[in-house]
Amino acid sequence: MAEADGTIWHGGDLAQAKALFPDAPEPWIDLSTGINPIPYPLPELPLSLWQRLPGAQDEAALLAAARGAYRVPDAAGIVAAPGTQILIELLPRLVEPGPVAVLGPTYGEHALAWRKAGMALREIAKRDEAGDARVVVLVNPNNPDGRLVGRAELSALAQSLAARDGLLVIDEAFVDFTPEASLIPELPPATLVLRSFGKTYGLAGLRLGFAIGEPVLTGRLRAALGPWAVAGPALHVGACALADKAWLDNARIDRTRDAARLDALLAPRGDVVGGTALFRLLETRDAAALFAHLGRGGIYARRFQHDAARLRFGLPGDETSWTRLAAALASFTPDEGPHARRAGTQRPGHD
Amino acid sequence: MAEADGTIWHGGDLAQAKALFPDAPEPWIDLSTGINPIPYPLPELPLSLWQRLPGAQDEAALLAAARGAYRVPDAAGIVAAPGTQILIELLPRLVEPGPVAVLGPTYGEHALAWRKAGMALREIAKRDEAGDARVVVLVNPNNPDGRLVGRAELSALAQSLAARDGLLVIDEAFVDFTPEASLIPELPPATLVLRSFGKTYGLAGLRLGFAIGEPVLTGRLRAALGPWAVAGPALHVGACALADKAWLDNARIDRTRDAARLDALLAPRGDVVGGTALFRLLETRDAAALFAHLGRGGIYARRFQHDAARLRFGLPGDETSWTRLAAALASFTPDEGPHARRAGTQRPGHD
Repeated sequence: MAEADGTIWHGGDLAQAKALFPDAPEPWIDLSTGINPIPYPLPELPLSLWQRLPGAQDEAALLAAARGAYRVPDAAGIVAAPGTQILIELLPRLVEPGPVAVLGPTYGEHALAWRKAGMALREIAKRDEAGDARVVVLVNPNNPDGRLVGRAELSALAQSLAARDGLLVIDEAFVDFTPEASLIPELPPATLVLRSFGKTYGLAGLRLGFAIGEPVLTGRLRAALGPWAVAGPALHVGACALADKAWLDNARIDRTRDAARLDALLAPRGDVVGGTALFRLLETRDAAALFAHLGRGGIYARRFQHDAARLRFGLPGDETSWTRLAAALASFTPDEGPHARRAGTQRPGHD
Repeated sequence: MAEADGTIWHGGDLAQAKALFPDAPEPWIDLSTGINPIPYPLPELPLSLWQRLPGAQDEAALLAAARGAYRVPDAAGIVAAPGTQILIELLPRLVEPGPVAVLGPTYGEHALAWRKAGMALREIAKRDEAGDARVVVLVNPNNPDGRLVGRAELSALAQSLAARDGLLVIDEAFVDFTPEASLIPELPPATLVLRSFGKTYGLAGLRLGFAIGEPVLTGRLRAALGPWAVAGPALHVGACALADKAWLDNARIDRTRDAARLDALLAPRGDVVGGTALFRLLETRDAAALFAHLGRGGIYARRFQHDAARLRFGLPGDETSWTRLAAALASFTPDEGPHARRAGTQRPGHD
């Protein structure tokens, strides 16, 4: 949801939490994102990765690893970028103008990017409301509610869009732990799939993302990025991590267990209405008060500017954080007085 | 100079050198770029820089350091990007269409980017040939010949462009060691200056560059990049390095000394017709044979597809490399037989 200046505020910036709750105890526990708190262990990074321009072979090695990890069909194109976000920004400038439908509510940057490119955009609540849209965008599984659209439905949607020279954009930022839900292996026509590296691998600061689809479109994205778009260290870390299936398998098991543990902590405070293994969505009429209560305890949840009854929680990364979260949730009483209300209703600065 | 497929080949990718000269001794000495071979020492990089999304404070710290290092006027805008290249790619899509003149010959990606955006582009040899161009692009000091246009002339050009609602784009990628030549401190209207981090600081793989100019235009670039465009480690390394004036001062002295040393080695082989402290341009009718001779010795110079009489040399980074280069240059005789000619005229794959 865009602010007046056209930018969107996000979780993950603790400076905002500290400004809201200056008296909170340190260290802050940042649960405001869906980033895996246990990162992929950084491989050794030779100085040459920092010194020289990233070479064609470095990029080829990363793309080969990504093709394997994401099971990309040989005929499909793939392009790497310094984060999925910049692909979201570039894409609307590289397709023919036409009506766009974004299945919402979802990650706000999609709608904003198409609007910035001057496209007529509708946010729709159901897929069958796409109408005459030539571009349909959805996040699958969705952020923040984890809603998952099945592959058969997506394929049918892609076919109908292909028939009218349209495009289906699927942001699979959170699909890594449920790979059977990915549309990439059977990639239908007129489909572009976005994959993010940093969330699952816990390395969001690295900036690495991919677009996979028809070679003409991925080629246009590659040309728009120009040479050396991805940093040398990111090419190397990405190539190592995406080839490491054992790490991913273990992370899926561990984070799925963590998600269940988080659900158990949240359940007394409301209804866990969705999520993925990396974040859980809590619905409660006391969301504002709970946000403020946790904030005063140095725990930063994610709230939503236009949905005052929901909070999203990422996973704690260590036992100290689990213990502090459990204690904070247990000590919450909905009516904490005027201070809670003030902190709960002041401009949050993020959606 | 663009290849048939619309891409441009550059120095810096040793895989190309190895393909041309598979029997050359290792390790290769890469003199094909203008990257400082003595990099800024990497500061400690806390894991959190890799894990979390880069925060607004991290970006603000980098921009503050860049404003100081580049002496940016308070009223000017500044935007950081994952390398200058992506700014070159984005810029033509963010200004009003109109005729564009690029002062050449120069770094080939400028002309290509404006052409890709559908602009009418002329490459001009002199500034007074700009004619009715609404956008004028020049690299200052120029790559590969080091040609430097004075600040007074640039200001006058900017004023005339401002009068017709135009834009002057100055790529100052190689100005760091001659800061008195930068137009940033007196930034005229209708001027956008590009600054590169990786060359001077010897960290090209990091991907970091800046655009500085009127806030409306830098704001458009920032919006086109979207949030988190620069990786966390790059924000931190850039902020440290750009605040370290002592390192820059020493590097200027050391590299200027190296450039003079290189000139002395090159002088017997032709005329050193220009350059900067990070690269030297040699003019010789034996350029193709010399390129092949050096290549067979595992030394990769930069040649130019459309100028067979010139070679560009970056600086060796250690005494072993200096010694090997000196020996290879001393042992060169223009007529090295058919093998030299073959290697010297086959498709070079770069401009």
